Amino acid sequence: MTESGNMFSHIPPDLPAELFETLAHKGTVRIERILSHGQATPEGEWYDQDRDEWVLLLAGSAGLLFDGEPELRRLTAGDYLMIPARRRHRVAWTAPNETTIWLAVYIDG
Amino acid sequence: MTESGNMFSHIPPDLPAELFETLAHKGTVRIERILSHGQATPEGEWYDQDRDEWVLLLAGSAGLLFDGEPELRRLTAGDYLMIPARRRHRVAWTAPNETTIWLAVYIDG
Repeated sequence: MTESGNMFSHIPPDLPAELFETLAHKGTVRIERILSHGQATPEGEWYDQDRDEWVLLLAGSAGLLFDGEPELRRLTAGDYLMIPARRRHRVAWTAPNETTIWLAVYIDG
Repeated sequence: MTESGNMFSHIPPDLPAELFETLAHKGTVRIERILSHGQATPEGEWYDQDRDEWVLLLAGSAGLLFDGEPELRRLTAGDYLMIPARRRHRVAWTAPNETTIWLAVYIDG
């Protein structure tokens, strides 16, 4: 864990899998950087988390689907949203030709 | 408070004072957007907070001084750092010619 840094630094040229890095961890809160490069949640699978997640997309783009919503939400740089605990969702796609940089703030209930 | 949005949207053309907006609030955590345009902490004053603050600069630039450190830390887009509770600090300057956009995550101890 680093106490300071830059969200756009140390981007690996190849990302065969998504990369999760903890930037800060205090009490019930963990802040992560997530790097994606074309990855998506496996078909038919959902995230179903027991904690709230606030997410901000900093670079790239992604399609986020919430269970029960008819349409994907397309996220681009600067877009943020709260994903409440137990709200089933999946990442349908991330940009195939660039690195998508996420900031995630996980908040234990 | 909004559950979703974009960090770069709704930037007022004039900012006579810094603008603080709560983006999310869950349990002990509050996430804010702060907009600055040339403002700084008044000379001789320090922030001395009773909670941790994780801060990320998204646009613009700023000079942050920690009490006891000889030099300012210059922050530009993407720079983040943890400001622990009780760590005295001040914003020495923010860019005078553009809007500086901060994300702040406040974590109660």
